[in-house]
Amino acid sequence: MSERALEELVEALRRLPGVGVKSAQRMAFHLLQHDRDGARRLATALTLAVQDMRHCQRCHTFTEAEVCSTCLDPRRDARQLCVVETPADQAALERSGSYKGLYFVLMGRISPLGGVGPSEIGADELLDRASDGVVEEVILATGFTAEGEVTSHALAQALRARGIKATRLARGVPAGSELEYVDLSTIAHAMGDRR
Amino acid sequence: MSERALEELVEALRRLPGVGVKSAQRMAFHLLQHDRDGARRLATALTLAVQDMRHCQRCHTFTEAEVCSTCLDPRRDARQLCVVETPADQAALERSGSYKGLYFVLMGRISPLGGVGPSEIGADELLDRASDGVVEEVILATGFTAEGEVTSHALAQALRARGIKATRLARGVPAGSELEYVDLSTIAHAMGDRR
Repeated sequence: MSERALEELVEALRRLPGVGVKSAQRMAFHLLQHDRDGARRLATALTLAVQDMRHCQRCHTFTEAEVCSTCLDPRRDARQLCVVETPADQAALERSGSYKGLYFVLMGRISPLGGVGPSEIGADELLDRASDGVVEEVILATGFTAEGEVTSHALAQALRARGIKATRLARGVPAGSELEYVDLSTIAHAMGDRR
Repeated sequence: MSERALEELVEALRRLPGVGVKSAQRMAFHLLQHDRDGARRLATALTLAVQDMRHCQRCHTFTEAEVCSTCLDPRRDARQLCVVETPADQAALERSGSYKGLYFVLMGRISPLGGVGPSEIGADELLDRASDGVVEEVILATGFTAEGEVTSHALAQALRARGIKATRLARGVPAGSELEYVDLSTIAHAMGDRR
């Protein structure tokens, strides 16, 4: 075969989440035909990221330093700790401008069917982190999916058993939506949690 | 910022076709959190593919050699030359087992709106290749999309002007389909080309 390097590239691209064999082929052809600079840049970015990115010792997110810039920011309120599933969720909260405390990034969520338990997502590290004597409230901001709810529930129980206050993001009607088009479970929660 | 390497990785992944910023973030987090081996493997595959893959001098497809293995295969019928848009299309024809001739891979299709003309897809190289005195028939197997049809039409005209026989893959009802669900344009073509 004289296309071994191409086949290996397609195989390697297939390991990306959400990429099947057809997408991987399209990506490989595109890079080789139209964007060899992009291919070289991606190779370098992958190598550097794997080499330089590690977990922040305090919040567990990805960082190139021992402790990430958010954890080191003296303007953040160290009495609040917000628990999120991924750095992308943290970024969404930051963009909302509604939170000035610190974060703990779980890097996943509990999935009984997927064999992911509390220890795999860093629950013990979270309990240690929240017991530093400064944190007064842990805000559970995992997703409102089945797995996110399970994760939130398990963490809330563990935190409260240690006497740490645990709260959950409010569930309710999203901004800009008409009640007619909101699903019934959301309306029921919004009614129950009315203020 | 202490996440520069992560941001650069997300930017580099975004250049892949069909990948937006959310997918790129998901890919980057997945690689760093769950598949650092996959990231290293992809970096190596990209570097080797860019370094080793070039165009076959005869059929224009990607190969690591001067001339690809298909063009060198003495069992192929050199009197037939099948023109396809991509190596993936070539692979589909090979899997069908219905063709034993040689190929010419355009690496794209004519797109007047996209600024892609005949010279960008190698029309001149195709005319040279088809004029080798051995090729008796050029089978145009570009896609049955608007751009694929434009490409096929332009190439057929150029080939016939040189006295080379040009044919087109048959259009018709796909195998396994019920007439009720076939689109009207396909039925009309199948009726017109009945045999």
